[in-house]
Amino acid sequence: MRLDASNLPDLARGCAVLAAGGPGDVQVALVMARVAVERGGPVEVLTPDEVDDDALVMPCGLVGAPTLAAERLWTGDEGLALRDTVEAIHGATVGALMCFEIGGANGLVPVMWAARGGLPLVDADGMGRAFPHLHQQAMRLAGVDASPVVLTEARGNTIVLRTPRDGEADRLARGAAASLGGVCAGALFCMSGVQARSSAIGGSYTRALELGGRDARAAGNVLVAQARVVDLQPSAATLRGTGDDAGRQLRIELQDGYLLAIEDGAVRAAVPDVICLLEPGGGEAISTERLRHGNRVDVVVWPAPGVWRTGAGLAMVGPAGFGYDIEYARGETADAPA
Amino acid sequence: MRLDASNLPDLARGCAVLAAGGPGDVQVALVMARVAVERGGPVEVLTPDEVDDDALVMPCGLVGAPTLAAERLWTGDEGLALRDTVEAIHGATVGALMCFEIGGANGLVPVMWAARGGLPLVDADGMGRAFPHLHQQAMRLAGVDASPVVLTEARGNTIVLRTPRDGEADRLARGAAASLGGVCAGALFCMSGVQARSSAIGGSYTRALELGGRDARAAGNVLVAQARVVDLQPSAATLRGTGDDAGRQLRIELQDGYLLAIEDGAVRAAVPDVICLLEPGGGEAISTERLRHGNRVDVVVWPAPGVWRTGAGLAMVGPAGFGYDIEYARGETADAPA
Repeated sequence: MRLDASNLPDLARGCAVLAAGGPGDVQVALVMARVAVERGGPVEVLTPDEVDDDALVMPCGLVGAPTLAAERLWTGDEGLALRDTVEAIHGATVGALMCFEIGGANGLVPVMWAARGGLPLVDADGMGRAFPHLHQQAMRLAGVDASPVVLTEARGNTIVLRTPRDGEADRLARGAAASLGGVCAGALFCMSGVQARSSAIGGSYTRALELGGRDARAAGNVLVAQARVVDLQPSAATLRGTGDDAGRQLRIELQDGYLLAIEDGAVRAAVPDVICLLEPGGGEAISTERLRHGNRVDVVVWPAPGVWRTGAGLAMVGPAGFGYDIEYARGETADAPA
Repeated sequence: MRLDASNLPDLARGCAVLAAGGPGDVQVALVMARVAVERGGPVEVLTPDEVDDDALVMPCGLVGAPTLAAERLWTGDEGLALRDTVEAIHGATVGALMCFEIGGANGLVPVMWAARGGLPLVDADGMGRAFPHLHQQAMRLAGVDASPVVLTEARGNTIVLRTPRDGEADRLARGAAASLGGVCAGALFCMSGVQARSSAIGGSYTRALELGGRDARAAGNVLVAQARVVDLQPSAATLRGTGDDAGRQLRIELQDGYLLAIEDGAVRAAVPDVICLLEPGGGEAISTERLRHGNRVDVVVWPAPGVWRTGAGLAMVGPAGFGYDIEYARGETADAPA
């Protein structure tokens, strides 16, 4: 598979769906990725099986405040600066990039870096969607170290941090990103091809392209169609059904993304499943930061990758991981990716 | 020269004088250093000439909020964690420690680390006193890179940062220190023995021991004796002379330390010279954070090392470096160190 100007718009739409409401501007990242492939040529996407066992795989993306990312000038060389530092630390050549987060702008940013560096991209990621914390990655469940975490911006400053507790990597990296202007380029969970194959979530670009290439609702479970936002609070949105769904009311619990969908006191959908609010009629995904009182939306749910529905996975990214005292129960969703 | 339990109290008094009013608790650092030498044996202090040309010299100390340093539990092994990381980066064994700042607690902390690691200490430092910013060091004037800056705390987290602009090292390191609990151990300007000899300020421990071992006033210029603090603002203290100095009034401009002494509109002393407020009768140095309305003090000035009285030195740490629009003019002080 190759990523070029012809399929990047589909990819961007799919990444926006997999953001699950998380912040960040996919459109700016799309423009940057498109310019990069037009100049540097298409990006080859390798299946995890095609990556050499001992190739050094570098999961990467932006770290810090997503809303600042769109306001900042990027040279596009941040990923190459990351690569240089990672290579110096590991004493090996980076064989392939990977996105650590397929959801949102971070699904596209590594495409830009891969095009500029002439590097292939692995069809995999660490989250299978977007999550708010850097350590919420499948590689952590498999025992891959997040450290060393490498951070850099466009001006030559580089920070390498190591922690024996991966759960602290996010806090440390955000503190460092703050010093680097609020948002920066980051690489973590660097690993061998064989580790990537066994620990990362496979098929991420394939899935995002599929989701973005057709009416996204077709692959998911439409929880409610043609609802309207009738109340919007910092931690919850209330939707009231219209048309065929008249009389129904859904509460969406939200933090940095949509986490729970509750109807008549029952949990209809829960994180780590991907809860998405779409513009009616198969339109764009709407992030929490763009959601407004009065918006008309469809609410669609896609199942989380299998690794997140294990006990260890749910402990990290299930409702309890976000402070909700409820059990995750998979709803009547379509088949989940492995 | 050796540092042991017999001369550390003198060293601590001297370091407090060379703090020039800067914050931090010398007493806590003295206790930690004393315990370390009692357990690990005395610390050998090498003159810069005694250091091997190609020995790796590691300037080190605490980075971050000095007032937090005294409240925090240190294992004493932070310096050894620094050393391990510095050795991994440079691919060489650290031959000697150096303090990057002889003034305040940072003159004593490397003594503790040297005792615990069985390492010698170079009789030199980067500031010749205390300064508020990490990059205000003589090595910078000589073109030694501050990077890589290594930071760690007692819990295994390590941050390595590199910047092509040494002037940003302070801001980046403080941001990282904030993530590590507000204060942490740091090493920067790591260099060879030959570089240390030509760029660092020599004789720092010798000078601090001398200042601490006798009535510190004897080596300096007593600007006013037996004054009383009659007004205290965040950026200035007004002192009124008593006894022989009755009728005189001195204004001390202060930020993180005492920076200017002004009498009748004339600058009597200015940074980088060391302006110190001492308890009357040859007592302890009083830092800006401990200074109170009504305190009785002697104001004594010691000349800055010669490197700071050059054009480049004054640009970095002269009055202009602290935002004062005045020319530095060396007062009627005793002979300055080289």
